[in-house]
Amino acid sequence: MTSDQRLSAQAEALGYSFDGAIKVGGDYVPLIRDGDHIYLSGQIPRVGDTVVITGAVGAETTLAQAQVGARICAMRALTLLQRSLGSLERVTATPRMTVYVRSAPTFTQQSEVADAASRLLHEVIGPAGVHTRTSVGVAQLPKSASVEIDFIFKVSAG
Amino acid sequence: MTSDQRLSAQAEALGYSFDGAIKVGGDYVPLIRDGDHIYLSGQIPRVGDTVVITGAVGAETTLAQAQVGARICAMRALTLLQRSLGSLERVTATPRMTVYVRSAPTFTQQSEVADAASRLLHEVIGPAGVHTRTSVGVAQLPKSASVEIDFIFKVSAG
Amino acid sequence: MTSDQRLSAQAEALGYSFDGAIKVGGDYVPLIRDGDHIYLSGQIPRVGDTVVITGAVGAETTLAQAQVGARICAMRALTLLQRSLGSLERVTATPRMTVYVRSAPTFTQQSEVADAASRLLHEVIGPAGVHTRTSVGVAQLPKSASVEIDFIFKVSAG
Repeated sequence: MTSDQRLSAQAEALGYSFDGAIKVGGDYVPLIRDGDHIYLSGQIPRVGDTVVITGAVGAETTLAQAQVGARICAMRALTLLQRSLGSLERVTATPRMTVYVRSAPTFTQQSEVADAASRLLHEVIGPAGVHTRTSVGVAQLPKSASVEIDFIFKVSAG
Repeated sequence: MTSDQRLSAQAEALGYSFDGAIKVGGDYVPLIRDGDHIYLSGQIPRVGDTVVITGAVGAETTLAQAQVGARICAMRALTLLQRSLGSLERVTATPRMTVYVRSAPTFTQQSEVADAASRLLHEVIGPAGVHTRTSVGVAQLPKSASVEIDFIFKVSAG
Repeated sequence: MTSDQRLSAQAEALGYSFDGAIKVGGDYVPLIRDGDHIYLSGQIPRVGDTVVITGAVGAETTLAQAQVGARICAMRALTLLQRSLGSLERVTATPRMTVYVRSAPTFTQQSEVADAASRLLHEVIGPAGVHTRTSVGVAQLPKSASVEIDFIFKVSAG
């Protein structure tokens, strides 16, 4: 199976379709190619027009729901990357992933939320998805999203 | 009009002068040149010695005030960049902008705050100001600032 | 004295040993070499198995304690870097440091917490430790840590 086939399989497993437009929430672009790097804008768990996982994790939202949210963020990022590159097979590394979790005052499992996105990267792009990571708990996120994730990828010329 | 002239025009429109020293708030430098990239430290809406936009957005501070704060952060960044490079005409791209908005618990318009800085970049440096972006809502910021923004720019040799 | 010797001296001054494993808190790696850059994952003040500085700064935790926490984060980063490179003498620059301080609602001295890490970099790796910096106050951090710091370093070939 190619990484592109694995991406489709993950979308199916998650029960969401990422076939439509991947919207940005403001006056910026979803990704920028910079030499052999691609910077991805912060992704929230939006599918189509709807942010599907909202609320403070540990209060209105459970850890399990936030993990679904983190997977959706990663699916959006990989889908954007695939459309830009033609194929995820061209991704060679993931130097950075930063995970912002909207956290209730006593919620300290930001790493466990982030792990759901980390595992999705490993499952879809394999060794190219090995990454450094920073996870923090923030007060709020755009559109009440429970999680937001940005990325720096490295890609081969093509 | 050159981008340098547009920067002056924006300062005038904003009603603040950025002619004096652009102070940093600690034991670090405002920017570092790294090959053809320039990393800019987090900028808060400080003009001279005064942080002019403070407080939690959505409680003590309005969206409109926070947007002025975001523009000031971007003005500081572009002014620092101009002084370092001699001219903003040498900026070629803006791979990343990260926007931290000090947010009241129910404030979710972090993207709308960030858009004010995004538009300033577009207005002053045009296509070179197209960027990826991450906007989050944080609990606090240094010196009670309402917004803080950092940047990675790309520049031509010179 | 080499930077490696200064690292040992700082560990002794701090009263903590960084000789054992430097654990990561999830499904990611502590650092990635990317050309002549090294991305370091977010470091919390963990020594061995214990996060030694926890709690919201300005409420459960003092500024002075948070500064110790920031130094531990920086010690972990430099120790990881040293193990990866063989010697800290190969570090040539520090384009970015991002400092997340878990902050009580009224705590605004995030820069003062970050300065403790900044100074440790200057003391150990000298001019190579000059950096740009962003410091923000977040709602929570993994494992209740009071501070988390990530880095991008630049290194010479070898």
